[in-house]
Order: sequence, then structure tokens, then C-alpha cells
Amino acid sequence: MKKSHIVIIGGGFGGLSAAKVLARKDVRVTLIDKRNYHLFQPLLYQVAMAGLSPAEIAYPLRALLGRYPNVQILLGEVLEINKDQKWIRTETNQIDFDYLILACGSTYTYFSSPQWEPFAPGLKTITQAIEIRKRVFLAFEKAERETDPIKREPYLTFVVVGGGPTGVELAGSLGEITRFSIQKDFENIKTHQTKIILVEAGKRILPSMSEALSSEAMKELAQLGVEVRLNSMVSHIDETGITVAGEFIPSTTILWAAGVAANPLNKKLETELDRQGRVMVTRTLSLPQHSDIFVIGDQAHYEWGPDKTPLPGLAPVAMQQGRFVANFIHRKSLGKSLPTFFPYVDKGQMATIGRSRAVAMFRGLEMSGFIAWMGWLLIHIYYLIGFKNRIFVLFQWAWTYLTFRRGARLIIEKE
Amino acid sequence: MKKSHIVIIGGGFGGLSAAKVLARKDVRVTLIDKRNYHLFQPLLYQVAMAGLSPAEIAYPLRALLGRYPNVQILLGEVLEINKDQKWIRTETNQIDFDYLILACGSTYTYFSSPQWEPFAPGLKTITQAIEIRKRVFLAFEKAERETDPIKREPYLTFVVVGGGPTGVELAGSLGEITRFSIQKDFENIKTHQTKIILVEAGKRILPSMSEALSSEAMKELAQLGVEVRLNSMVSHIDETGITVAGEFIPSTTILWAAGVAANPLNKKLETELDRQGRVMVTRTLSLPQHSDIFVIGDQAHYEWGPDKTPLPGLAPVAMQQGRFVANFIHRKSLGKSLPTFFPYVDKGQMATIGRSRAVAMFRGLEMSGFIAWMGWLLIHIYYLIGFKNRIFVLFQWAWTYLTFRRGARLIIEKE
Repeated sequence: MKKSHIVIIGGGFGGLSAAKVLARKDVRVTLIDKRNYHLFQPLLYQVAMAGLSPAEIAYPLRALLGRYPNVQILLGEVLEINKDQKWIRTETNQIDFDYLILACGSTYTYFSSPQWEPFAPGLKTITQAIEIRKRVFLAFEKAERETDPIKREPYLTFVVVGGGPTGVELAGSLGEITRFSIQKDFENIKTHQTKIILVEAGKRILPSMSEALSSEAMKELAQLGVEVRLNSMVSHIDETGITVAGEFIPSTTILWAAGVAANPLNKKLETELDRQGRVMVTRTLSLPQHSDIFVIGDQAHYEWGPDKTPLPGLAPVAMQQGRFVANFIHRKSLGKSLPTFFPYVDKGQMATIGRSRAVAMFRGLEMSGFIAWMGWLLIHIYYLIGFKNRIFVLFQWAWTYLTFRRGARLIIEKE
Repeated sequence: MKKSHIVIIGGGFGGLSAAKVLARKDVRVTLIDKRNYHLFQPLLYQVAMAGLSPAEIAYPLRALLGRYPNVQILLGEVLEINKDQKWIRTETNQIDFDYLILACGSTYTYFSSPQWEPFAPGLKTITQAIEIRKRVFLAFEKAERETDPIKREPYLTFVVVGGGPTGVELAGSLGEITRFSIQKDFENIKTHQTKIILVEAGKRILPSMSEALSSEAMKELAQLGVEVRLNSMVSHIDETGITVAGEFIPSTTILWAAGVAANPLNKKLETELDRQGRVMVTRTLSLPQHSDIFVIGDQAHYEWGPDKTPLPGLAPVAMQQGRFVANFIHRKSLGKSLPTFFPYVDKGQMATIGRSRAVAMFRGLEMSGFIAWMGWLLIHIYYLIGFKNRIFVLFQWAWTYLTFRRGARLIIEKE
């Protein structure tokens, strides 16, 4: 019998989890990604904040899957999907599939103002993280050589848009940098001259957590000098600053952590999407009209729980869905009985705010402060892919923790 | 009495060594660099070959010198030097000096063919190293998905131009990658399909070493599958390949490690330059007409030894000159007696070819193979700036050595 061929698009948490399950089965797998590495996205903000280097949170896909002879990895971008004839096409290859898993993730949206993007970069890719790092440390350099205090102010004002986990992590890290790291390094900059503003359109930060944890996070951010502005809409951004709730804030460093949008590929699928552009999937994560095409992770809209809310764009969701779909396909290809729905197990949520500061919830339990931070640290290091990376990152963190020094503060020039 | 103000341009080996000496004296120091970090250039090829990450060989200048209150660091490019009125000007500041130290290093020259540069990048900056890394690993990715063997050949042919230490190190690393690393990762690429060609215009590689070590290096390169072409001039390079001694070699990955040229700033100095554009300095490393302006490192032409040959562009030369000039200035500012010439102490030379393979000469002693490699490793790690970096790099190397895995094989996209 001919082996089933499963094509997976995307080597993030969802796609990689599916590939790892299928690699051990008697099937053929082709994993296609635009990049040659898996990115540990939850720690990307650490690259932006110069705590870690890219290679510490990214791992080559070939290193992760190279030992499985039935898995082929292809670097490329999928341009076309033919659902009925069952093939996909990249710039260089056309590939037939028996089963297709779409795991392409999400992107940032600037709502109806794409012109803001150059002035307020998002944080989805390594390139963006390096760009943010450059802007932050270049701002300090410019402040250092500027003698006019009025002209210096915008360099020392940092605005983060979006009060979700990424926004909180960025603002908290900036608080630490301005409080501890820059003191030793710059002669002309004092902490009290720096300003960090976290802007949130809704009525509280970390809206996916409990209200108690939201206000705990507010308190911890305040301790790091971060000013949180709630119920504040952004109406304008340009190279001189940002207008928030009608007030203009002069700032040269604005970071965007709001408005996640689904993958642009979804529109080409000609299937029902939700308001955020995610694909409406069946109870077994397939397309309604094509039971051999699956969509998982941030790309999919799957409702769960008593409130029937769509699952959030978190790594554990994508990983569980990846494993579910892989096993589903394997059973189906063998003609075995199939589960009728994807059962989600809530692994909780957490956000770190800084050194020894975090908030976490896990099965009704809520934690904050040092204990939550330790939990956050252990879980993130445990899930970091590859033994070497785990050790390296642990070492790097221990170093930063003990010395307050950020080793990766390099401003890499473009040429 | 007003403290003397010393301006240092360039935070490489020469400028940093001078700054460290002067930081401990009763003078004011301003160090100006285009970048915010000191780069450990001798290991840059490891970043290009995915053995190390940028942050492991680059260290923020502020972290190195931040603890000295009399040292100011300024990020900027020097646009003008007024030798008589004793000031320099950057994009943002004009700064007076009592003494000036020029330590701006060198750059690559493509001789009279600057149009070759986009097809054959050099290796002077982190950005270039990342670009080379991207080209090398992208070539493997393209070969992996190309089914036509004729079309695949240029992807698997790597040409390095220049048989000095950098060229030898790049070619040797490519030999290791094609022999060991890619085997596990790529299904469709076999080592015997790959070709590495080292092109040298002169009659032997490593011309600054002895003939015995040159041929030892040739032997070690051959063991790694590197084909060395001596007496071979490059006449053309474009996106399809390179013409060497009249023969066209189809290749998509050509690396440039030939033709070092002095800093373009030198022409603005209006002083005598040598044929390679380096500044002719006095026996105490100053400009002939301006005894308070010094030029050191790769930027200077200083003759030494029985043959009166100019000192080579090596880190130990720059470091010794930096310390000499710093002490000279300090003594002069105190009105003390001054040395009449810079005395160079030859620390030997070495080049690594690969895992356990190197050549080295030190005070008449010549070494090759494992013992030379161990010497190379220890010296380079010892001189790596910052305790943390030393430990990290050692760990990283031990890992790569034991596993043949290159952790930093990331192809970072441009956006």
C-alpha cells in the first residue's frame, strides 16, 4: 500500500508538534516553512530587550527533524492551495498531498492604519526583535549625546501599545533596563528622566486573566516605573510620537503589541472565517467541506468551554491541536475509529513582568511575584527546544539576574 | 590645571587598548565609534559559519568602559578632522581635543571591480557575517529542493577568494560543514556533490607564514575536501559564478577574503599614505606634521624588523600600539621623558583550518595539527573580552566539537 503523504505548512508550535508525532508513524511527511528554524516565540521579547540572542530561542528545523528519514523539510512560501485536486504550490515546487495541515500562525494588524507600522514595529519575527532592540538602544545613545533636555525627552520616552502578555513583558523589561542596566552605562541619562507608558484600549491589562491578577500585574509594573493608561485609544503615530486618547506623547520608540490578525493565506482558502480572519473549523479541526485539510493554532477558530469562546493564540493550544490532528490522520489512514472532537486541556496562562515578577493562573490557582516568576522560568526553559538551548538560556538568565547586565545589547547596523 | 582631553576614534583592538590605559589616568577620554560594541574580529568567521552568535564575539563598549567616570562613549561617525584647530566633528557633535588617536581599522577592496561586491561579500562586520551565513545555508536549502543535477551544481559549489588567514578559515569551515554537518540534515545532498575552491593569486596560501606551514595548511585543507588554486587571478564575478585563471566556475556562493584596503578616512587627513592607503607614521606613531595626532593598528604604516617591512594588520599589533600611544600621551601631558620609537614584540601568528586542525608560528617555533589548534583555541578564548563571553564561547565550542552541530544555522530574513 502506498504510504499516506501529509503536508504540513508552518514549523511553529502546532506544525512541529504534528510533525514529531507523524515522524514516528509509517507515513511520509513534508514540512514547508518560509524560515529554516522553529522560533520559540514566547521568549522573542527577550531578544528584543537584549537579554538573549536569536540562536538561543530559535532552532533549525533540520536539526529538530533531520533524523527522521520519512520527513522532508522544504524552505519555501506556499502560494496556492488546490483543495479538490489536493496539491499545494511553492515558488519552486508543486506537491501532492493526502492530508494537509495548515499551521501558519498569525500576524499583527494595525487595524485600518498600516501607515503606522514603520514607526511602531510589532514583535513576530527575529528581524523585528533585532529592529526593536536597535531602536531602544539607539534611543539611549541619542539621548546620551543630546544636551538639550527638551530634545532629549522623546528619546527617553518609550510607548508600548497593547496590554496583552507581550505588551506587559516589553514594558516590564523596559522598566528594568531604565532602572538598572543603563545607570552604569550612560553618563548623561538618569532613570527619573525616562518614561515608559503602556497603552491599552480596554479597561484592564491581561484581559484573558482574572481581575485580581490584572491589578497585581499593574502593581508590579508600577514598581518598575511603568505608567499604564487604560481605556486609551491610539489615534495617530508618526516619527515624532503617538497620540493616545487625544494627548500627543513625543516619543521616538513606540512598540506595537496590539491587534493580532490571522494569516493572509486564509482569504485564499475560500472557506468561512471569523471576524478576526481565523478559519472556522469543524469539531475535529478540519475545513467544513474538506475533511482531509486541517487548520490549527492561531490560524484556527475553535470554540471551547461552557462559554463557547474561541481558544486563545497560545503555544499549548497549538501543540495540543498539532498532536490531535497528527493522531487523527494516522488513525484515519489506517481505517481506525476516530474521535469526534478535539478535547482541549487548559494548561493555564502566565506573563512575566520582570526579574522576580510575574503573574500566573493554573486550574483555578492564582500566583504572583517571585513564585509565579520561578514557575514561568521553569516552564519556559523546559519547553525550550533542544537540550543545549535550555542550558544556554538558563546560564544566560542566571548571568543577567546576578549582574543586571544584558549581553546582547548590540545595535546591528544595516548596510 | 585643566585635564588633557584625548579623543579616540574607533573601538577596535587598538582604540580599546588605548582607552583602557587612559581610563586609569588623570585625563578625560572620549571614545567615538560607529557601532556600540567592540567586535572580536578574529572569530567573526565563526559567526559567518554558524558556529557562534554575534553576541558571543561582540561586547558593548559601554559595558567595557562604563565603570570609568572619565571616559565618555559616543555613537557616531567622524566626518571632519581639523588638525590645526584640534577638533573633530560627527553628525551631531563638534569636539575639541588635546590629543587624537585614530584607530579606525581597514576595509576590503575589490581592486578596480567594486561591482563584484554584491556577489562576493567580505567579512568585516556582523551584518556581513550574517549575510554570508544566510547565503551558505540558503544554498543548501536550494540544492535540497532542486532535482536537476546540472542546476544543483552551482548551489553546492563554494568559492573563497584570498588565501590569507580569513580565507583559509572560511574554506576550512566550509569543508567541515559539507563533510559533517549537512549529512544528517539534508536528504538529497551528498558530500561528494559539494565543491569548495580556495582561490589565491599568489604562489602560496598564508604568505605571512613559513613555506613549511603553508604546505601543512594545504594538506589539512585537502583532508577537508578543499581544492586550492594557486597563482589564480579572478577576472570576473557575477550572480552565476566566477572566472578564475580564465576558467568559469558556476557558483552561487562566492566569499571575498582578499584585498584589504585602508580606511577611506585616511584620504581626508592630507598626509602621506602608502600604496595601500595606510598612513605613514613617525617612529612614535604620530602624523609627521602633527605630533599630537596618532594613527595605530590597520590604519597605520609602521616599518619594523631587519627587513623594514610594515607591521601586518593583526590584533596584537593594534593592541601594543594602543597601549604605547596611551602611555606616550600620558607621559607627554605630565612633561615626562618620552620613548623615541614604538618597540614591537612579535607574538607569532596562527590560523585555524578546522576541528583539531591549525598552523601556528611563535618565536621560531612552528606547530600544526591538534597542538596548534589547542594553542589557537586557548589564546582566542583568553583574549575574548569579558568573562561571560569566554565561558559561553568555550561551552559553545565544546558542544559543536562533540556533536558536529552548528547551533546558529539561522537564515535571518530581511523584511
